Amino acid sequence: MVETRHDERMSPVNAPFKAVDNSADVAVIMAEIGVQARAAMRVLALASETRKNAALAAMAAELRSASAAILAANLEDVAEARAGGATAAYLDRLTLDDKRVAAIADGVDAVRALKDPVGAVLESWTRPNGMTIARVRVPLGVIGVIYESRPNVTADAGALCLKAGNAVILRGGSDSFRSSQAIHAALVAGLRAAGLPEAAISLVPTRDRAAVGLMLGGLDGNVDVIVPRGGKGLVARVQTEARVPVFAHLDGNCHIYIDGAANPDMARTILLNAKLRRTGVCGAAETLLVDRKAQSQLAPLVKMLLDAGCEVRGDADTRNVDARVKPASEADWATEFLDAIIAAKVVDGVDGAIAHIESHGSHHTDAIITDDKAVAEKFLNEVDSAIVLHNASTQFADGGEFGFGAEIGIATGRLHARGPVGVEQLTTFKYRVRGTGQIRP
Amino acid sequence: MVETRHDERMSPVNAPFKAVDNSADVAVIMAEIGVQARAAMRVLALASETRKNAALAAMAAELRSASAAILAANLEDVAEARAGGATAAYLDRLTLDDKRVAAIADGVDAVRALKDPVGAVLESWTRPNGMTIARVRVPLGVIGVIYESRPNVTADAGALCLKAGNAVILRGGSDSFRSSQAIHAALVAGLRAAGLPEAAISLVPTRDRAAVGLMLGGLDGNVDVIVPRGGKGLVARVQTEARVPVFAHLDGNCHIYIDGAANPDMARTILLNAKLRRTGVCGAAETLLVDRKAQSQLAPLVKMLLDAGCEVRGDADTRNVDARVKPASEADWATEFLDAIIAAKVVDGVDGAIAHIESHGSHHTDAIITDDKAVAEKFLNEVDSAIVLHNASTQFADGGEFGFGAEIGIATGRLHARGPVGVEQLTTFKYRVRGTGQIRP
Repeated sequence: MVETRHDERMSPVNAPFKAVDNSADVAVIMAEIGVQARAAMRVLALASETRKNAALAAMAAELRSASAAILAANLEDVAEARAGGATAAYLDRLTLDDKRVAAIADGVDAVRALKDPVGAVLESWTRPNGMTIARVRVPLGVIGVIYESRPNVTADAGALCLKAGNAVILRGGSDSFRSSQAIHAALVAGLRAAGLPEAAISLVPTRDRAAVGLMLGGLDGNVDVIVPRGGKGLVARVQTEARVPVFAHLDGNCHIYIDGAANPDMARTILLNAKLRRTGVCGAAETLLVDRKAQSQLAPLVKMLLDAGCEVRGDADTRNVDARVKPASEADWATEFLDAIIAAKVVDGVDGAIAHIESHGSHHTDAIITDDKAVAEKFLNEVDSAIVLHNASTQFADGGEFGFGAEIGIATGRLHARGPVGVEQLTTFKYRVRGTGQIRP
Repeated sequence: MVETRHDERMSPVNAPFKAVDNSADVAVIMAEIGVQARAAMRVLALASETRKNAALAAMAAELRSASAAILAANLEDVAEARAGGATAAYLDRLTLDDKRVAAIADGVDAVRALKDPVGAVLESWTRPNGMTIARVRVPLGVIGVIYESRPNVTADAGALCLKAGNAVILRGGSDSFRSSQAIHAALVAGLRAAGLPEAAISLVPTRDRAAVGLMLGGLDGNVDVIVPRGGKGLVARVQTEARVPVFAHLDGNCHIYIDGAANPDMARTILLNAKLRRTGVCGAAETLLVDRKAQSQLAPLVKMLLDAGCEVRGDADTRNVDARVKPASEADWATEFLDAIIAAKVVDGVDGAIAHIESHGSHHTDAIITDDKAVAEKFLNEVDSAIVLHNASTQFADGGEFGFGAEIGIATGRLHARGPVGVEQLTTFKYRVRGTGQIRP
């Protein structure tokens, strides 16, 4: 068992929970994890930036020095997944190597370098009676993170939640169980080194899927928000079953609209990037909308995509410009292909584009290419998505590209966190009122 | 039927739904209300401040001119409630008179006078690649408001949601059904006068309680947040059953802590106000904590409360100072009395106060009285409540007193809206990214 190896390596871990695979105990264990996370949250919320950064530095160092142990644990996970018939793509997500472990440690360092959001005064004002009111940023609380095969999420999410002063309960994928435990052991060592409670970053010590259901139930009020990281199946389950708020997006059905007043070169460059830079990211464009007034641009744009190896599924207008275009089905307009496939349609101006996006989009990220400033403003104003762009690629839908430094995901929900969820989005606020004896008349 | 009277008075209302009391239809009706609210939201989100204010002005005028009809409808409600054995307090909350209707209209005018929060740029920055990113305030979406006997909530909530560009679905109490319908008719007339969709403010046209369950289920994703307005029973049901986020507080178990370094005069003045100015508001103090170092203040404070007619339930120390003090039970520490009753306890300094509040409080509003600035900062920092006050009365826990102009309630949840929920808290944001052809490397 990997955690035994870590116990040996790191001297007593005092981890509150050992790995269990006994369903009968899961409810008891999860309830206790919730209670301990809530208690840890109180300590974390008051921890200084110095102490949190010390923990993050120790975590990064520990991840580097534990690299061999992490890779050994990962080998066992990969062997088991391969024996279970996992696909090559799945195994690639699961597999760690020296470079990936180094990147995980670097990621923790990058989180350490972020500005501590806690304590910032967001707003303050003085009332006519002389009282001053300040809205001050404080940690969100206890964050539950449910993820799948990528073991790096253990460190990424653990570090980001800690930086914002939150406790986190991590529930990694069954297939990366040993890898996540090995990474978690390094995080716990970092917490211990900085004198922070180990329950600040808990890893669910069982593969039993009942643990997920219990987390979605909120662990008796001890989970404030759930962040799912994984495929649509996971996100859909979390969104359907969670009894606590969820930061997530189910679909990133992103649109790129080429307006009649678009610069043709810019349209080509951005479209190619938006669709094909990486096809598997949530900001990849999935539908191309072309203004009827820009129809002269349609053929070269479609040809460019086809020549670049992208399948185009078009409406009648689009099929007319190139024989290689396949017919689009109604479902294609609402599909996040996450592949070298794009749906393409001619629309009547920006109003047609907005209407199409509002009917078929997922409120994630949508872009307009135009040199007409008024048309651009209309699009930015009326498209009801977390991110709207003018003359830029949809692939900028990313916390790092926004300058957030790190993100735990992108949310399309309307409350609290919308768009990239970075360290600031993992905080809330409270009001501090300072008086000199004021009473309410 | 009251709505018939309004149809006559105001010429065709074209209300999409007539009052129904047929359970079989409720699911169909509620689903359709959700769809129409979502569609109205899109129009509202893009409506200008001028148009929204025109609607609010017309609503206020309509409420004033419909005063007689509203009072007649209310008379029927009150008669029915009285026949049903309602208490005097209940009837008082339900009953309208000329003055109360005028106050409702004035409230709508006050909302009109608020600054329109929509479109405000909350933050903007330029990326190294030259892209500018702006976080811009936009409406939250569709808000479900579930309330009880007070018919004024119909106008208060309808107006506030409209000002922030939201559609609202109102579900008033069964006992104020006719009153709410009469008030709602005036609001709809105002919307119509300004050319805004009537579905921007929907009133559930049935007393069937199944409608509440359907709203709590989110009406197929067409409700973004639920705000309950009413007693603990309602709030508890909403918090337990809602599948969408809720802005609410279940308890306002507010504490006032008299530190050893408190000015005795200020302590007396603020304690009296915090407990007894109004005992039925959520910001009323429910527990008095006195520093052991301030024990000389305990007797005069307790005597003051008792002499003012407040029952004091104390620990042994408190019982020692006055024979009239009753023993506090364990439950008293966690009780929101909403009455002239206070629990009282001697604690060991600010640490003891914080520990007590964190164990027994409801994270609503808590105050410290002290002349020691460092102790005050410790309290403000470590008490994890939506509102923390230094040398001011807990009864300031109110959107109006915060300068928000109007509030739809006070939230103790940690996400999105915490503390008073005013017009700004009924908004969310989106990111507008402006580029000049940027692609992601």
